[in-house]
Amino acid sequence: MSMTLTEKIIARHAGLDMVKPGQIVSAKVDLCMANDATMRLNIDIFDNKVKATKVFDKDRVILIMDHQVPADSPQTAEVHQLSRKFAERLGLTHFYETEGICHQVMMEKHVEPGMLVVGADSHTNSYGVIGAVSCGMGSTDVVAVMVRGETWLQVPHSVKVELTGTLPAGVYSKDIILNLIKQTSISGLTYKAVEFTGPGLDGIAVPQRFTLCNMTTETGAKSSMIAPDAATYAYIRAIRGSAPEPDPTLFSDPDAVYEQTYHIDLASLSPQVARPHSVDNVVDIGETAGVAIDQAFLGACTNGRIEDLREAAGILAGHKVAPGVRFMVTPASRSVYLQGMREGLLETFMSAGAIVNHPGCSACWGACQGVLSAGQTMISSGNRNFKGRAGSAESNIYLSSPATVAASAIAGKITDPREYL
Amino acid sequence: MSMTLTEKIIARHAGLDMVKPGQIVSAKVDLCMANDATMRLNIDIFDNKVKATKVFDKDRVILIMDHQVPADSPQTAEVHQLSRKFAERLGLTHFYETEGICHQVMMEKHVEPGMLVVGADSHTNSYGVIGAVSCGMGSTDVVAVMVRGETWLQVPHSVKVELTGTLPAGVYSKDIILNLIKQTSISGLTYKAVEFTGPGLDGIAVPQRFTLCNMTTETGAKSSMIAPDAATYAYIRAIRGSAPEPDPTLFSDPDAVYEQTYHIDLASLSPQVARPHSVDNVVDIGETAGVAIDQAFLGACTNGRIEDLREAAGILAGHKVAPGVRFMVTPASRSVYLQGMREGLLETFMSAGAIVNHPGCSACWGACQGVLSAGQTMISSGNRNFKGRAGSAESNIYLSSPATVAASAIAGKITDPREYL
Repeated sequence: MSMTLTEKIIARHAGLDMVKPGQIVSAKVDLCMANDATMRLNIDIFDNKVKATKVFDKDRVILIMDHQVPADSPQTAEVHQLSRKFAERLGLTHFYETEGICHQVMMEKHVEPGMLVVGADSHTNSYGVIGAVSCGMGSTDVVAVMVRGETWLQVPHSVKVELTGTLPAGVYSKDIILNLIKQTSISGLTYKAVEFTGPGLDGIAVPQRFTLCNMTTETGAKSSMIAPDAATYAYIRAIRGSAPEPDPTLFSDPDAVYEQTYHIDLASLSPQVARPHSVDNVVDIGETAGVAIDQAFLGACTNGRIEDLREAAGILAGHKVAPGVRFMVTPASRSVYLQGMREGLLETFMSAGAIVNHPGCSACWGACQGVLSAGQTMISSGNRNFKGRAGSAESNIYLSSPATVAASAIAGKITDPREYL
Repeated sequence: MSMTLTEKIIARHAGLDMVKPGQIVSAKVDLCMANDATMRLNIDIFDNKVKATKVFDKDRVILIMDHQVPADSPQTAEVHQLSRKFAERLGLTHFYETEGICHQVMMEKHVEPGMLVVGADSHTNSYGVIGAVSCGMGSTDVVAVMVRGETWLQVPHSVKVELTGTLPAGVYSKDIILNLIKQTSISGLTYKAVEFTGPGLDGIAVPQRFTLCNMTTETGAKSSMIAPDAATYAYIRAIRGSAPEPDPTLFSDPDAVYEQTYHIDLASLSPQVARPHSVDNVVDIGETAGVAIDQAFLGACTNGRIEDLREAAGILAGHKVAPGVRFMVTPASRSVYLQGMREGLLETFMSAGAIVNHPGCSACWGACQGVLSAGQTMISSGNRNFKGRAGSAESNIYLSSPATVAASAIAGKITDPREYL
């Protein structure tokens, strides 16, 4: 019987020839990731509930501090300390304390096509970008994976998003996913496996595809998927120096079953903005342009890669950040930061008056860096605009592409990036 | 009658031919500076107690956000917002929100030899480095200056610190001032004007002299002073593109009266470390080497200048930060950051595994970035190591030169920088 790539990967990890949507399986997990946001709870469960003393594989349980780095309080410093001690005690090979956002680090260093990955973070489903099935889970399930190296899993129904055409200038993959979320609502694809496909993908580089997969979380999806192609392996090789041999079995069968198919004609899109306080409150930029901003944020696992920095710096070059606006730039990882420095992008940002922060979740997590007070408004390249997400419950967050963020930082109000192309 | 330079400058601003120590005068103030640490209080006094509606001079009241930038909470974001609105309402020419530490920005852009400057920050006495009399004051006095452009002032007694000889390799101006504080104790020079002089000064560049003046606060001093010389004006010209005409009257009369004189033979010094929890708990590095550290901090108004970054990068080059240690680097200002980036110093830090933060007070203020949990130890290039200064009251802070900070970051324990020269 035919299967989607997601189903194939799950079947393989469950030791089965085939699986069907709705079926509950027990599957081996390749990698298990957790970060500082939940590590206090994870350690408590590991030590005191499960009373475990070792992990299933020291190379495959990966801890990444990113949400509140550098520590902003004795409490967060303690979480980092507890995590470091936990990693030392269990002999974990990979403990990252200041390397950047967990999902970016996982993609740069660890995830491979065909893997099954579990993480204690809601955007763990991002790794579909390189053909892995990956899911965010709660601490109890994640700790079970840390200990046993496997998890129970209900095979999700798949949904296809077929992309055709080419993005117009000034429109980016962030605009695609915001448009999709507008169509699905924030709960419309709950527990689905969302697969992006179609000829439109050819024109979208892997780092931009990451943005698509990353934000499937905001549709309620369980996981995301893009079948690896030559670009996938070339990208992995570019960022790691080497890549696994392409696996010719990693594709969805032509007659695989999808519960639903969305068609998006890329050429028809204009810049999209998600307005407060829901990620599906999406409009064409023309409907919200002119809203005054106090802060602009470029970064997050959604849009903190070198390509995003280039996109924003290209808009910003020759301009200054508007008076009264903080333009926060936080590269997604140490390697992005270094690359951005070498390319002169950080110089462009700093010379224009921006703030450049050490890699981390920064204002998208909104708990310790670039926090908003009541009445303030931020435009953000991040993935969530829930009420109070970046500080005061009386603040407002708009979500957009890095280009729209940069154009808005220049103008001091939400602005169509095509005005600066 | 003969006067010290400090007395001459005070007399000039009081409209008097001469002043004597102990005399209370009313003096015109050239510049009045405040930062986010006290702005909520300043604004409350200005609006609600004094009920003022304008400042004495829009060009001379300068607001600089630096202590908690970017904002780490809705409360600090609100202070920044209140300050911005205050600056707008009063038409202030100079409002700096993301430019770096107030004292560094003041020296880079505003202070001139011979000025009298008041600031709402305890390290405002730093500007003696370029021949200004400057004092930190509480909010009530600072607001009075904002409104009236003058202040009452008791003329301080002067104390001389005579420097002779040349610093050995691996020993820096931070070691001089720590050694002085060891001699004076943290209250030994309370309300004194501390003047650095002697042939030893010739070998100390202006940015390093800043460190001397900055930390006179830790002796209890009212102000610091170094008579401007050719190096002073050359330095101002180098960082601003222009400098005022040298004022030939800015010197202490040869027979001026000093209450006390300290002699320090620079050649006799070794690297100094102030141990917890007092800045005068100073020992030669040999007495405290080997103490394990969790964090190393390079930055602060004390030691966050380009010369400090060079000093530390020179030690760090070719090494990695020790596992388990966070090495935080926070340039003192935007221009230091940009210069550090252009010289490749930030690349050195980032490639070695350090954290590079946007300019600000950072871990020296210890309230929002690089905070310590109980039991953690930091070596810092900052100016204070009070109990709880950088987070938990159960954490420990050691103070040293940037070179010692860098050497310790490599080794993971307090280490003599001469081991890496």
